Amino acid sequence: MSEKQSIMDIDTVSLDESDHSIVIIDQTLLPYETKTIHLTSQKQIWDAIYTLQVRGAPAIGVTAGFGMYLAAREIAEKADSFDDFYTAFKKAEDYLDSSRPTAVNLSWALKQMDKVALANRDKSLPEVVEALHQESVRIQEEDIRACHKLGEYGLTLVKPGDGLLTHCNAGKLAATRYGMATAPMYLGQEKGYGFHVYCDETRPVLQGARLTARELMDSGIDTTVICDNMVSSLMKEGKIQAVFVGCDRVAANGDTANKIGTSGVAIIAKHYGVPMYIMAPTSTIDMNTKTGDEIHIEQRNPDEVTEMWYKRRMAPEGVKVYNPAFDVTDHELITAIVTEFGIARAPYTESLKQMMERKAEAGRQQ
Amino acid sequence: MSEKQSIMDIDTVSLDESDHSIVIIDQTLLPYETKTIHLTSQKQIWDAIYTLQVRGAPAIGVTAGFGMYLAAREIAEKADSFDDFYTAFKKAEDYLDSSRPTAVNLSWALKQMDKVALANRDKSLPEVVEALHQESVRIQEEDIRACHKLGEYGLTLVKPGDGLLTHCNAGKLAATRYGMATAPMYLGQEKGYGFHVYCDETRPVLQGARLTARELMDSGIDTTVICDNMVSSLMKEGKIQAVFVGCDRVAANGDTANKIGTSGVAIIAKHYGVPMYIMAPTSTIDMNTKTGDEIHIEQRNPDEVTEMWYKRRMAPEGVKVYNPAFDVTDHELITAIVTEFGIARAPYTESLKQMMERKAEAGRQQ
Repeated sequence: MSEKQSIMDIDTVSLDESDHSIVIIDQTLLPYETKTIHLTSQKQIWDAIYTLQVRGAPAIGVTAGFGMYLAAREIAEKADSFDDFYTAFKKAEDYLDSSRPTAVNLSWALKQMDKVALANRDKSLPEVVEALHQESVRIQEEDIRACHKLGEYGLTLVKPGDGLLTHCNAGKLAATRYGMATAPMYLGQEKGYGFHVYCDETRPVLQGARLTARELMDSGIDTTVICDNMVSSLMKEGKIQAVFVGCDRVAANGDTANKIGTSGVAIIAKHYGVPMYIMAPTSTIDMNTKTGDEIHIEQRNPDEVTEMWYKRRMAPEGVKVYNPAFDVTDHELITAIVTEFGIARAPYTESLKQMMERKAEAGRQQ
Repeated sequence: MSEKQSIMDIDTVSLDESDHSIVIIDQTLLPYETKTIHLTSQKQIWDAIYTLQVRGAPAIGVTAGFGMYLAAREIAEKADSFDDFYTAFKKAEDYLDSSRPTAVNLSWALKQMDKVALANRDKSLPEVVEALHQESVRIQEEDIRACHKLGEYGLTLVKPGDGLLTHCNAGKLAATRYGMATAPMYLGQEKGYGFHVYCDETRPVLQGARLTARELMDSGIDTTVICDNMVSSLMKEGKIQAVFVGCDRVAANGDTANKIGTSGVAIIAKHYGVPMYIMAPTSTIDMNTKTGDEIHIEQRNPDEVTEMWYKRRMAPEGVKVYNPAFDVTDHELITAIVTEFGIARAPYTESLKQMMERKAEAGRQQ
C-alpha cells in the first residue's frame, strides 16, 4: 500500500476469518510505509507485541483476545478433554502475558478470555472455541464504544480553536477509530472545532512523530510535531490550552503509568496552569494497584537510545514543526548562577550586579 | 584520526599561525569521527558557526575573535588607511555577527575586537593587526581561566558520589579544557569525587548524546545517556543531586537563555527539590537585557526534527543508557481522569471507585 493511503481507513487490529489470522498495521514501518501483516502463530503474536509492531494498551488487549481465540482453535483440534485443552490454553496465556509487563490491558484481556474458557468448561470444545471467538470480538467492540465515550467527555473540557498537546500515541493506532487521547480531537474535528494539535515526538521510539502526527494529519487536523523538550517553551508562549494523554495503567489513587516523559509533561503543565487530562478506558484502571509505586516499569533495549532503529524520515511529509533552538528559564527556577567571580543567588538583579562589579574590580576587561 | 583518540587531547578551537587558519574539531561528525578542519575564509567561519561545526557560546566567541584577527590580516594587506581598513573590518564583523543571533558571546567577542581596533587607530596597520591578534588570544585565555574558576565554585555545591544531570553540551567542546557545566565534573574527577553524570541527549541535534557523553567518557567519568523526557523519572528515583547547565545569555534579572529544554528541566528539578545551577562565565551575562522576554530565540530548520541529520550511531560506544519505557505521573499532577463512564477528579480514591461502580451498574463485564 502506498504512503498516501489514509491510516484512518485501515483497522489497527482485526481478525481475518478467512485465514484465521490477526491483521495489524506494522507500526514499526510508519510513517513511511503503510503495510498490514497477518499473524497466525503465538510466536508471531508475541513478537508483534514485543517489537511494537502493534502497541498501545487497548490495541494490545484486543490483539491478545484474538490471539487467545486463535490459540484455542489450534489447541482444541488436538485436545481430548477440556482439562487437556485448558492446560495448553493456560500455557499460551502465560506466554502472551510475558510480552509486555506494564500495560494492564494485556493481562486484563487474557483474564477475560480465561474466565470465558472456564465458564464454558462443560460444553464441547468447538463450543468453547466459539465462546472465546465471541468474547474476543466483544473486547474489540467494547473498546470502540469506550473510545467514543472518552471523546464525548473529553470534548466538554476544551473549546473550539484550542491548542492541545499529546504525548506518545494514544490514538487510533493504539486502539480503534477514535483512540483515547485523540478521541476528543477527532470528535472535535467532525464538529469543526479547528483544534491545533501538538505532538511530542516521544523519544526513544518516536510514536508521536511517526504515528500520532500521521493519523492526525490523515484526519485533516492542524498538526505540529515538537521534540519532547519543547513543551515548556510552547506552554510559556500560551499555545497549549490542555494536555490529553493515554495511559497504560491507572492505580486506585489516580497515579498513572504512561509512556516515559508523561510525568515531566504533567509537572510542566502544572507549572504553567495548563490542565492535564488522562484519557483512561476503565480497562486500564487497576483498582488492585494501590499507588504508582506498585507499578513495574520495564527497562528497554539501550539501542533504542543510542542507535536509531528507523532508517528513514521519521515524521509525515508536510507536517508542521516547531523547532526553537533555545528557551528561557525563569530566574525563579534557578537555584544559583555560578560565575568565575562567585556564586550568585536570588535576588539576581542584585547578585549579578555584584558579580559584574567584582569583575570590574578585578581589572579585567568588561 | 581514529574514534579512539581522546577528545580531551585536542583543542576545541585554536589558531594555526603556520597557515593563518582557525583549527576546530568538526562537531557535526562526533561521536563517530574525530576530525579537525582548518577555516581560513570568512565564509568558512560563518558556515562553521551556522552549521554547528563549532558551537557553544564561549567557543563561538573564541572563534569570532580569531576570525576577526584573520579578517584584519587580509583586509590590512589591501587597505591604504585606517578608515579604509575599518570600513571593511566592520563589514566582516557584521557578517560574522549574523551567523547566530542568540549567543551573546559572539557579539561580545566581536565588540571586544572592534574596541581594540579603534583603540589602535593611530598606529600602523600591522600594529593594529598585531593588537587584534593579541586580543583574540587573550579572549581564549580568559575563557580558560573563567571555566576553571566555574569548576572551583561549582564543586562547592556538590559532594563526592553525587548524581549530576546536564543538558546539551556546555563542556570542553563548547569552550576549553573544563567547559562550563562540566567544569565541576572534571575538577571533581581529578579529585576522585566519583560523580555519576547523566546527559540529556538533547534533541533535535543531540549534543548531549554525541558530544557531552563522549567527552565525559573520554575523561573516565561514569556517564549515562538519557532521552530528554526521562529527567522526571530519574529525579523521582532520587538519582540526581544537582543539575548543571551552561547558558547562551543571562539577563540582568537572572532569566537564562540556554538550549531548548532547559526551562523544562528547571521546572521538573524544582518540583523534586533538586538544585538547578547555571554555569555562567560573565561574558554570557548581559546586563543590558533586562529580562528573558527581550531575548530573541532563533527558530531552526524543521528538518532537524523530521529527518535525522546524522547517519550513524549517535552516542559513544559503551556508554551506559537509562531507558525506561514508562513513568508514573503522580495523581496530584493530574487535573482529571476521563473514562467512558465520566470524568474523575481528585480525590481519585473516591472518584475512580465511583467510575468502577458506574461501570458495574451499566451491567458491563468488569
